Amino acid sequence: METARRVYRRYGFVPIDTPALEYLEILTGKGSEETDRQMYHFTDNGGRAVGMRFDLTVPLARFSAQHIHELGTPFKRYHIGPVWRGETPQAGRFREFVQCDFDTIGTTGVVADIETALVIHELLQEIGIERFRIRINNRQLLTALLESLGLSQLATVVLRGLDKLEKVGAGAVEKELSEAGLLEPQIAQILQFASIRGAPDAVLGQLASQLHGNERAEEGIERLNTVQRALVAAGVPHDRFAIDVSIARGLDYYTGIIFETMLGDLPEIGSVCSGGRYDNLAELFTKQHLPGIGASLGLDRLLAALEKLGKIASNPASTDVFIALFDAERTSDYFEIAALVRGGGFSCEVYPDAKKLGAQLKYADQRGFPVALIAGSRELDSGVVQIKDLRSKTTTEVPWRSKPDELLGAIRVMIAMNRGDLMA
Amino acid sequence: METARRVYRRYGFVPIDTPALEYLEILTGKGSEETDRQMYHFTDNGGRAVGMRFDLTVPLARFSAQHIHELGTPFKRYHIGPVWRGETPQAGRFREFVQCDFDTIGTTGVVADIETALVIHELLQEIGIERFRIRINNRQLLTALLESLGLSQLATVVLRGLDKLEKVGAGAVEKELSEAGLLEPQIAQILQFASIRGAPDAVLGQLASQLHGNERAEEGIERLNTVQRALVAAGVPHDRFAIDVSIARGLDYYTGIIFETMLGDLPEIGSVCSGGRYDNLAELFTKQHLPGIGASLGLDRLLAALEKLGKIASNPASTDVFIALFDAERTSDYFEIAALVRGGGFSCEVYPDAKKLGAQLKYADQRGFPVALIAGSRELDSGVVQIKDLRSKTTTEVPWRSKPDELLGAIRVMIAMNRGDLMA
Repeated sequence: METARRVYRRYGFVPIDTPALEYLEILTGKGSEETDRQMYHFTDNGGRAVGMRFDLTVPLARFSAQHIHELGTPFKRYHIGPVWRGETPQAGRFREFVQCDFDTIGTTGVVADIETALVIHELLQEIGIERFRIRINNRQLLTALLESLGLSQLATVVLRGLDKLEKVGAGAVEKELSEAGLLEPQIAQILQFASIRGAPDAVLGQLASQLHGNERAEEGIERLNTVQRALVAAGVPHDRFAIDVSIARGLDYYTGIIFETMLGDLPEIGSVCSGGRYDNLAELFTKQHLPGIGASLGLDRLLAALEKLGKIASNPASTDVFIALFDAERTSDYFEIAALVRGGGFSCEVYPDAKKLGAQLKYADQRGFPVALIAGSRELDSGVVQIKDLRSKTTTEVPWRSKPDELLGAIRVMIAMNRGDLMA
Repeated sequence: METARRVYRRYGFVPIDTPALEYLEILTGKGSEETDRQMYHFTDNGGRAVGMRFDLTVPLARFSAQHIHELGTPFKRYHIGPVWRGETPQAGRFREFVQCDFDTIGTTGVVADIETALVIHELLQEIGIERFRIRINNRQLLTALLESLGLSQLATVVLRGLDKLEKVGAGAVEKELSEAGLLEPQIAQILQFASIRGAPDAVLGQLASQLHGNERAEEGIERLNTVQRALVAAGVPHDRFAIDVSIARGLDYYTGIIFETMLGDLPEIGSVCSGGRYDNLAELFTKQHLPGIGASLGLDRLLAALEKLGKIASNPASTDVFIALFDAERTSDYFEIAALVRGGGFSCEVYPDAKKLGAQLKYADQRGFPVALIAGSRELDSGVVQIKDLRSKTTTEVPWRSKPDELLGAIRVMIAMNRGDLMA
């Protein structure tokens, strides 16, 4: 969550949290039938029907529609918070889970599309994932293809079919579309379209020739081209993104560019960061045209993935310095040392009970502290302290009262050694 | 919230979030009658009675009782999250509000009492408040006084009276206690006790002579003495804390040291950060003895206060660098510059629409950007960019493609000038 906040801010997104509870009428009918069914809702103490949000997008649409005149556009916000769905819990799926959304409201400009892709890229990269690929598509191309095949009325059926193409294979999708009434050449064209692969230029070239003359498609292709050129200019490696016209994203509200992010080492868990352009979403709440684009990091799914990949340390973000409580009579002295250590920029804690030193150091070890400071009354009287490297178990004595910089320097070196910074 | 996270971590507290929904039986009867009445509760899709948490302490007690064997002690956690109470909203009081709690579970050691006070102090200081005072008391002293007066049975009445002493004055409290059946000399002793003021040593001296011979009181005084000496040793200024035996904290569950934090410039809003030791709280959920101490920053109340004190900037945490979209054809170039700027450690956004420059700069101004970069095709072709100080409105040209460090240096200077760092 800290990484997400840092990256979102770097792109000018500001934090805005909407409430967990909304009037029920705001939430119903805005997601799928399933989210309506799974929603937690009740009557509050004032007799009002209220519901707990099932995503962060619908409340954002409500909020934007209400406040856009004060906010001004473009309005760029992020929101990291829990949402609730009363479904049956499964591995990586909970009734309360955290979404990390960022959205840009009030512009149709391609700049916002590019920024969205760049934020996804930096987010995954800074979380520490090396092998991933952002798949980019534009709904306009699918719409244009369906138009050209006279299938606009069956858009939902086709989108749903494409959505599971990767999971169930071409045969099953072919069967499904055939049962829905599509003719064989229509199905063949759709599947051929969805199978286009290759470098962005090659994919865009094929699309241009296949959808030649359709204005909407040409616009959509041009936009994808602008996006991919900007990603390269911003330094995104070629293997980190692809133009992939087979992705459809189930949700009906997308109207333009759409994103999915697959992990190279765990493609089976599906997309960990998805989103797209929804130029009509706010019209549920306002007559004003309020275009938007955004994406959402699925934190619980990503954490499950990181755990599988062994990328979650068992002692995450441990505290730097452990101070043993050797002599309870000298509590003030330990806090004087602790203040010195914190003033030097290190986190630090004093053990709260004057237990045997072995028990205290065992705790420090288990919690992953790199450094322990130990001082009895003799050391305290002479203004020195024992500094112990909890990995190598070596101990040396350093002055703290007369030469605080020496203590801080020793801590700095020991932490660096522990992290391996100085091991080469 | 970021300051709170930073300070909590510096003291070794780790983030643990418990769910917003708990089984109703976990929540009811654990706070006051009022919280029971105000609680949002309903029956979930599986027919279970559930409630939305009204504070973060009761869920922590449940969580600790359940998991303390895996967690080990001391268990130090912080939790920043919303809680819900269906009360009538007033200024600074909402139905959904955020609490910032930190707690140490599993130790009765005075070290945890000291750390709690130090965290409160650093928190307020780093938020930018200069004039505040932490009032420290120990419930043991009140208990001892009531024992010595034979009033243990009436503890709740006396605590409630003391709690509003400051607001309603001694006369009103005297009347209330008299109506509750207390005798005149008992009331006089209680009010005399509550009126003790002065430097910590003087207060503790008076308390020692007044409660001489009561073992519980002597223990309580000794503990307060250890705390105050450690605060001084850790560098807390003398005017930032006081031993104040008049504070009682309404909640019944406190058993030892208690804290309140008053703002020097706004005493009337009450305590912005309160807490204390509750050595029996977890016994609601476990037979194991699980002592704890913690405090909670009242974020909404503090924000209301900061607003009154004019300490909330109208453009908080603005983005560093604004890049105008002067020529939409050159979108990739702007993103190349943006990547360079972000790589230099600055946050930055590209304006999404190729509007007139004046409109773009007006947006940048309103959002509080200190620096704007402007480049048309001529500049982009020659690898330069106009850098504009949005406060002084001065513009200069710097190279970016050949000498990126020159651009980054110019941005750094301009931001520092804007903040006034270089103005002296």
